[in-house]
Amino acid sequence: MSAGKLFGVGVGPGDPELLTLKAMRALGAADVIAHFAKAGHPSHSRAIVAQHLRADVVELPLHYPVTTELPACSQAYRDAICDFYDGAAAQIAGHLEAGRTVAVISEGDPLFYGSYMHLHTRLAPRFATEIVAGVTGMSGCWSAAGMPIAQGDDVFTVLPATLPEAELTRRLSDADAAVVMKVGRHLPKLRRALKSSGRLPQALYVERGTMAKEKMIPLAAKTDDDAPYFAVVLVPGWEKRP
Amino acid sequence: MSAGKLFGVGVGPGDPELLTLKAMRALGAADVIAHFAKAGHPSHSRAIVAQHLRADVVELPLHYPVTTELPACSQAYRDAICDFYDGAAAQIAGHLEAGRTVAVISEGDPLFYGSYMHLHTRLAPRFATEIVAGVTGMSGCWSAAGMPIAQGDDVFTVLPATLPEAELTRRLSDADAAVVMKVGRHLPKLRRALKSSGRLPQALYVERGTMAKEKMIPLAAKTDDDAPYFAVVLVPGWEKRP
Repeated sequence: MSAGKLFGVGVGPGDPELLTLKAMRALGAADVIAHFAKAGHPSHSRAIVAQHLRADVVELPLHYPVTTELPACSQAYRDAICDFYDGAAAQIAGHLEAGRTVAVISEGDPLFYGSYMHLHTRLAPRFATEIVAGVTGMSGCWSAAGMPIAQGDDVFTVLPATLPEAELTRRLSDADAAVVMKVGRHLPKLRRALKSSGRLPQALYVERGTMAKEKMIPLAAKTDDDAPYFAVVLVPGWEKRP
Repeated sequence: MSAGKLFGVGVGPGDPELLTLKAMRALGAADVIAHFAKAGHPSHSRAIVAQHLRADVVELPLHYPVTTELPACSQAYRDAICDFYDGAAAQIAGHLEAGRTVAVISEGDPLFYGSYMHLHTRLAPRFATEIVAGVTGMSGCWSAAGMPIAQGDDVFTVLPATLPEAELTRRLSDADAAVVMKVGRHLPKLRRALKSSGRLPQALYVERGTMAKEKMIPLAAKTDDDAPYFAVVLVPGWEKRP
């Protein structure tokens, strides 16, 4: 018996219509669908494809043992997450060895800040693998906002809000266009960095881009500092519009 | 009679299967499909959706009067391209005013370095507009390569190869992950900048990612300096893999 094939499938930013035809085909071909979630929470990626799941598909939920409870740089976090990915890869390898096709579904694009990457590095050397590119969360956000983000010779940068304030300020000053991710509790610091770099007036705050409870507001008009981990801030480039 | 609706539709990086369900719906709803191309050349975006075009759809080809023949910063280029976008917007406005639904199709994502943006800024203030996010060309390239591009707290940057060598070097040194676009005749300079910044060993050269004549090779192994304008170079991040 020959081994099955592994698909890393991007399912897009949240709107189920932003699934690609290729993702649909991979979902149709898969014997097993694996999806990540925080323990005790529904999987976001599963919710996006729920209406397209075959009745007879085997589901393999993969529950993070830890998300933001421990600092990501701590040894305890790294040990827990490494064990988790080793275990998840072993479960998937079992299905592949038994000749089953496995699709790991990822919000956005699988190889752009996605958890699937941890399985890819463990499994791609051993099994036939295909990546189905997806619409990223950030594309979903600027499209929902109707905000042209970058053009021509713009330098475009993606920054995690976890960076120190001085570094955020420097990098926001140094880029034509930027997307800041993982905003959450870093919003007050990010606000200061945007102000120092002169980018606050153009910055747009977006929660749940393309999803049912989408929220967007110019950051300068947002009066509170409440922000979920997955909120993003968009800073458009394209200053020299003809 | 009420005015029609404008769709800015991302059609993805080249593989027709990377079209989204939402793009398919917009194509089905459109009375007029507008697509950009260099004069005398077939439209890349049209080729991606060719099999899904309705027989009765009106096509509106938009031919750039100039592409790389003039420096993009020259007044002559800016005048020519500005007149072109004004004229294209006027043609589309005519269809919208007549109550027709118009879809402008864009390779990749419409608001990420796309020509559609020039029409959007001219038309969105006057007409109902909806953006359909698309899979970007760069996502298509790293997915085709199976290359995890950025993870965790990585800083990710998109750079045009048109930048001066010293600035390319500085920015390549300053980012965890990078995508360099518009490689073309800038390849020798980009190669030097990658070498100076220590990123050459990881750099991957990609032409026509996800398309029929896709080519990819580690840049360090590429022995010539031939590169089309649309070639990209990928520099992966994620140095601290657990």
